[in-house]
Amino acid sequence: MSFADRVRHCNSYDPARAMPLWSGEHRIGWLRRDNAEVLARHSEVFAVDDDSARLLPRGDTDTVSRTVDNVVETLVADRRVPKWRNETFDVAPRWGEQPIFRLDRGAVPFFGVRAYGVHLNGYRRDGDNYSLWIGRRASNKQVAPGKLDNMVAGGIGNGYGAAATLAKEAEEEAALTPELIARAAPVGALTYRMETKLGIRDDVMFVYDLEVPTDFVPTNGDGEIAGFELMPLTEILERIRTTAAFKFNVNLVILDFAIRHGVLRPDDPEYLEVANGLHRPLD
Amino acid sequence: MSFADRVRHCNSYDPARAMPLWSGEHRIGWLRRDNAEVLARHSEVFAVDDDSARLLPRGDTDTVSRTVDNVVETLVADRRVPKWRNETFDVAPRWGEQPIFRLDRGAVPFFGVRAYGVHLNGYRRDGDNYSLWIGRRASNKQVAPGKLDNMVAGGIGNGYGAAATLAKEAEEEAALTPELIARAAPVGALTYRMETKLGIRDDVMFVYDLEVPTDFVPTNGDGEIAGFELMPLTEILERIRTTAAFKFNVNLVILDFAIRHGVLRPDDPEYLEVANGLHRPLD
Repeated sequence: MSFADRVRHCNSYDPARAMPLWSGEHRIGWLRRDNAEVLARHSEVFAVDDDSARLLPRGDTDTVSRTVDNVVETLVADRRVPKWRNETFDVAPRWGEQPIFRLDRGAVPFFGVRAYGVHLNGYRRDGDNYSLWIGRRASNKQVAPGKLDNMVAGGIGNGYGAAATLAKEAEEEAALTPELIARAAPVGALTYRMETKLGIRDDVMFVYDLEVPTDFVPTNGDGEIAGFELMPLTEILERIRTTAAFKFNVNLVILDFAIRHGVLRPDDPEYLEVANGLHRPLD
Repeated sequence: MSFADRVRHCNSYDPARAMPLWSGEHRIGWLRRDNAEVLARHSEVFAVDDDSARLLPRGDTDTVSRTVDNVVETLVADRRVPKWRNETFDVAPRWGEQPIFRLDRGAVPFFGVRAYGVHLNGYRRDGDNYSLWIGRRASNKQVAPGKLDNMVAGGIGNGYGAAATLAKEAEEEAALTPELIARAAPVGALTYRMETKLGIRDDVMFVYDLEVPTDFVPTNGDGEIAGFELMPLTEILERIRTTAAFKFNVNLVILDFAIRHGVLRPDDPEYLEVANGLHRPLD
């Protein structure tokens, strides 16, 4: 494996295996063909033809959300969607625009709608040497149990912005104080699109950096992280390159950190492919 | 105008107006159709059909370079290529690989081969307030005369790497000492593809950041910069948004700086489009 392989792994999406999902003039999701066939049974809500699918109901967000939710209930009953926590994501034409409907988080990959999350690199610096606080995901997590993760990460639920989600997750996941959270800086957005068992993940990760004091130790409060470890970035990069220890998308966040902080450099033969590949076009 | 408009301006490339240029199995350039028609007259060197063109000579770099140079001479005579400075760029299948041939810099957009450059953000920081040293390009520059520029920028000529080019340009353009140059950190790579009067620019910019001391003032040594000014980043961003004062691709470098340093933030409606649009895929 190589760094570029980690990027490719998160971009396994194959257009030939999916079709666009439309609402009015907006392309709002990518449906894997087997999932589209299932939606075709709900012809009062979804019009599905050979090459595209369309969400039929129009109107206010609450009404459309309830209609879609009725379909999601049948998908959950058929075990095509693992319904989670009654946490919903906004489905909007574009980031920051009014949502067309809200979708249970568990159904997001089935419909291939774009999902937004935040990732926080909590780091220490000693000259040119960086260390990052790395969490180990709890063994009961639905996605990537036991894998290594950023100090803080989470999906942006409906009604939350990026900064509000970061603040909420940083408090719950790593017990950051409001003073420390306020010092986290947004440093970019990474994008990828991959096929999973459930469908298509079309993800945007808003990345934040926070240099933490040497006397700070993160402690988890919500049971989602089994523990934290401060790791030298050089060791992290070697594990990323040679093992699958890190959650698939966390590899990308840390490669971006290494690029932005001059640890990965243009003389690395993979540099350009990795630096470019972290930013899949938003089509 | 908006920030996203600046990104779109650098990505004006329209595939319908161009065709790929191949060498063996490698796509090495994008030829605008009118340029392809001109190359078709040199059928011993270029095979041109309706949808693609092919460089025919194979062999060692010097031999292929001389053959292409003979064609370039006729393009210069026809004023289709402004021949510059006898400075050549490597044309390789990918960054870091052995060049297939070397091409005079003036002919690079005619053939639409990928060109690589370095850009250095020379900045001061006072808390959350950033200022950047901005150069004004000399009025006799062939590209973007009189426009505002980064403190240091330059194309990567054949045989040079990114770091060596930065060191050379930083000394010539801004009189940076070797000690200061050594503190510049590579922070990423930006990509764009635009149509110009001459053809297609398919550019990669390796970006560097350097925090300069408060007593440092850049001075130009090669006549390419008419003068330098220290500008607050907030003022720079306003000028980028509302004027065409900055060279087209320098807009991208500074938008990237503002994103990486948390000055542009996810709550800006253009954030995602800009952050993503700075990284055109390397196809």
